[in-house]
Amino acid sequence: MSQAVNLAQKLDLFSQHWSPKIVSQFNGHDIMVAKLEGEFTWHHHDDTDDFFFVVSGHLTIELEDGRVDLGPGELYVIPKGVRHRPVAHGEVHVMLIEKAGTPNTGDAATAAEKNWI
Amino acid sequence: MSQAVNLAQKLDLFSQHWSPKIVSQFNGHDIMVAKLEGEFTWHHHDDTDDFFFVVSGHLTIELEDGRVDLGPGELYVIPKGVRHRPVAHGEVHVMLIEKAGTPNTGDAATAAEKNWI
Repeated sequence: MSQAVNLAQKLDLFSQHWSPKIVSQFNGHDIMVAKLEGEFTWHHHDDTDDFFFVVSGHLTIELEDGRVDLGPGELYVIPKGVRHRPVAHGEVHVMLIEKAGTPNTGDAATAAEKNWI
Repeated sequence: MSQAVNLAQKLDLFSQHWSPKIVSQFNGHDIMVAKLEGEFTWHHHDDTDDFFFVVSGHLTIELEDGRVDLGPGELYVIPKGVRHRPVAHGEVHVMLIEKAGTPNTGDAATAAEKNWI
């Protein structure tokens, strides 16, 4: 039985921060939800653009040459290779899309394990 | 200057139905917004999965072996090759993601032209 993925319902199922959960897949990419709070590490991805869509809260993505501020219903794509640091103001709920298998920190040694939810 | 894409603001810029507008790109894919109303044609895409995310309204995606109902904040990915027909109940606003250059009807001869907005 095919069923839609409700982002808010998926986000209700966990509380960890910076721990993306896979909710669907698309052309070899993982579609994920995550809860963010505070500052993440500076990182980049050599092999994939990085798609952020804010479901709730306010997120800044710091770039080496500027910053992007996102609120609910807003998205931004960080081109591959571009260093960035997400900074969540309070708790922020997001949908993320990355190539399947991409480490969230840009480095497999420090990345969170990504499980389906 | 880098700037977030606000889906509601982009959707306010046009009124045509079944005419996706590109708002960003991601790993060779177009990220689009569209306004849907009524029944679309049955079609499939040989080369790409088809990502639907509902911003507002209620959408049914009819499949040959069932249907998926989507409301605001819900997404569904139709696997490539799977025949489907979107049916919008009233006006529905969506975000779509497809491989860049994909005809929205599955056939270049009948597809809407996709422009940036």
